[in-house]
Amino acid sequence: MPAFPTSVVAALPSLVPFVAPEALEKQLGLKFRLRLGANESTFGPSPHAVTAMAQAASHVQNYGDPQNIELRDAIAHFHGMPAEQIAVGVGIDGLLVQFCQAYLDPSRVVVTSLGGYATFDYAAVGTGAQVLRVPYRDDKPDLEGIVKAAVDSRASVVYVANPDNPSGWRSDSSEISKFAAQLPPDCLLLLDEAYAEFGEPETPLAGDRVVRFRTFSKAYGMAGLRLGYAICGGDQAAIIDRIRPHFEVSSIAQSAGIAALSDQEHVRSVVRAAQDGIESIRKIALSHGYRTLPSRTNFVLIDVSTADSASALLNRFLANAVFVRKPSRPPLDRCVRITTSTAAELELLADLWPK
Amino acid sequence: MPAFPTSVVAALPSLVPFVAPEALEKQLGLKFRLRLGANESTFGPSPHAVTAMAQAASHVQNYGDPQNIELRDAIAHFHGMPAEQIAVGVGIDGLLVQFCQAYLDPSRVVVTSLGGYATFDYAAVGTGAQVLRVPYRDDKPDLEGIVKAAVDSRASVVYVANPDNPSGWRSDSSEISKFAAQLPPDCLLLLDEAYAEFGEPETPLAGDRVVRFRTFSKAYGMAGLRLGYAICGGDQAAIIDRIRPHFEVSSIAQSAGIAALSDQEHVRSVVRAAQDGIESIRKIALSHGYRTLPSRTNFVLIDVSTADSASALLNRFLANAVFVRKPSRPPLDRCVRITTSTAAELELLADLWPK
Repeated sequence: MPAFPTSVVAALPSLVPFVAPEALEKQLGLKFRLRLGANESTFGPSPHAVTAMAQAASHVQNYGDPQNIELRDAIAHFHGMPAEQIAVGVGIDGLLVQFCQAYLDPSRVVVTSLGGYATFDYAAVGTGAQVLRVPYRDDKPDLEGIVKAAVDSRASVVYVANPDNPSGWRSDSSEISKFAAQLPPDCLLLLDEAYAEFGEPETPLAGDRVVRFRTFSKAYGMAGLRLGYAICGGDQAAIIDRIRPHFEVSSIAQSAGIAALSDQEHVRSVVRAAQDGIESIRKIALSHGYRTLPSRTNFVLIDVSTADSASALLNRFLANAVFVRKPSRPPLDRCVRITTSTAAELELLADLWPK
Repeated sequence: MPAFPTSVVAALPSLVPFVAPEALEKQLGLKFRLRLGANESTFGPSPHAVTAMAQAASHVQNYGDPQNIELRDAIAHFHGMPAEQIAVGVGIDGLLVQFCQAYLDPSRVVVTSLGGYATFDYAAVGTGAQVLRVPYRDDKPDLEGIVKAAVDSRASVVYVANPDNPSGWRSDSSEISKFAAQLPPDCLLLLDEAYAEFGEPETPLAGDRVVRFRTFSKAYGMAGLRLGYAICGGDQAAIIDRIRPHFEVSSIAQSAGIAALSDQEHVRSVVRAAQDGIESIRKIALSHGYRTLPSRTNFVLIDVSTADSASALLNRFLANAVFVRKPSRPPLDRCVRITTSTAAELELLADLWPK
């Protein structure tokens, strides 16, 4: 008789939230010429971070600091927060799994968007909690609908991405503040700000039941490194410290993160180039008769009108060796999502755009 | 009113399993001259792995493969196992947290050694399961006592490290096979083989309820990289795939792991040097009137007779800028644990050994 997983884990589906481009290449029997499907940064990391990675690699035989002291100090200084309120993990994905484990169990309810960030959904489902999914409204997260669902269900956790993936929409800080104030008083708001750097700086949302997530995968250009952090309004970092694997973040990531934070000029140049790229994609799409949705991120949705035509366009992109993705749920499943890139890559995109 | 963690997490203690050498340096106000407390490899990684890390870092803007396909293929080939039975994670520590999450909950019982690997204890406690700890017997894990505790408690999971940390003891494969056969039929055996490379190769334990854990942190010399794997006797890798963060292992670690596996001559040279180093430490200890315990690992226990005298010796090592550790529980708390190292470092150890 085999050993059995817990009742919660036994009931989970076997699925992978994202099929990787490497796996798609195997399926399709081709090598992608453009990799514009995962919102990676073609602009790469800061040269300071590259140097820091090489230096850290030269003493990789030693464990990194399990408390991430220097990195958390650097992040805390950057945001003007106490280091005790910074949690560090292997990307926002890793942190979301830990926050769900700490704040959700089969007796609890969590509210997210239907068709929102798939990895949050995966992390929430993994705890056995009841997951309520509020459909997008006007092509953006339905903040009013999420509040109503959270209040009605006495939700323990609410997840919203701002700017949002996959829509690209960014609510302004007054809307987010109003939204947060309407949530139940004992509800934790997980605010995923993976794409924050791509919009104008705004007053960050504060409050002891708000956790904001940031990543080095997008504007900082180090998705392969696995590094993200949570800015905790309350005692959440200390709670996560009770369950996280302490030697989780590599010494290379710790060093690269500190160096990357110190080079904000690199971030600004990436953001400018990303915005130029989105404008280029908008023009290319228009030349093919498609409008694009507004975006404050490093990607943009091409509106293809129907889910079927969007699937067809997606498949033609893939056949042309262009890796892009599409949202899976209405109303955004009528769109194809393309990551912004360098001028050279977007010229190639124009060439490879399906006729 | 703040948001509350789950009842399981709310009940957990706030403690860090290991105080890092960096934190100890701050406490003591000194910089360590020798870092021999964390069983790291002074011999460093394979040059092949160094090259692979640099190559992977040059395209760190891209996500690594979330399914770790090439790395799992390489590991599977190395061990003569199907890739479906290999799970990859951020070191054995990260995998132990995931296996505990998948196979333990507050209704279940797990058996380990009292004073065994602290991070397993931490991971098990984190699930809310009942943790039974069987004391060491004759300075090694009490396999008979663990079987009895597992049978009596109908344990779901048993954890044993072989070779064991902190004792250094290695049971031979016939003992481990007999032990595994006596466990309850629906009990999962987690066999931590972090130090396996330091002993002679033996017939590995098989069976669909046995999971063996390996790491790139010890003989492979890449503790800072965070990479380990599980060789699953049954369907456990597929179960873990339901709950792990899929983009967890960095692209740098994936590439370095493949390169490191391909250089077994490096591993053999590290193992030879480690054994020479243990012999040197044994001689230095003897010259100070201490005997050492047998070790098939990259560290050795110095028998200081009593816990108080061991604490005193530990503190004198630390005051001399030599980072070493000691076990915290009887009977091994009468010992100080020293990691093997290069001949040059062990000459310095002889000089800095407290008079």
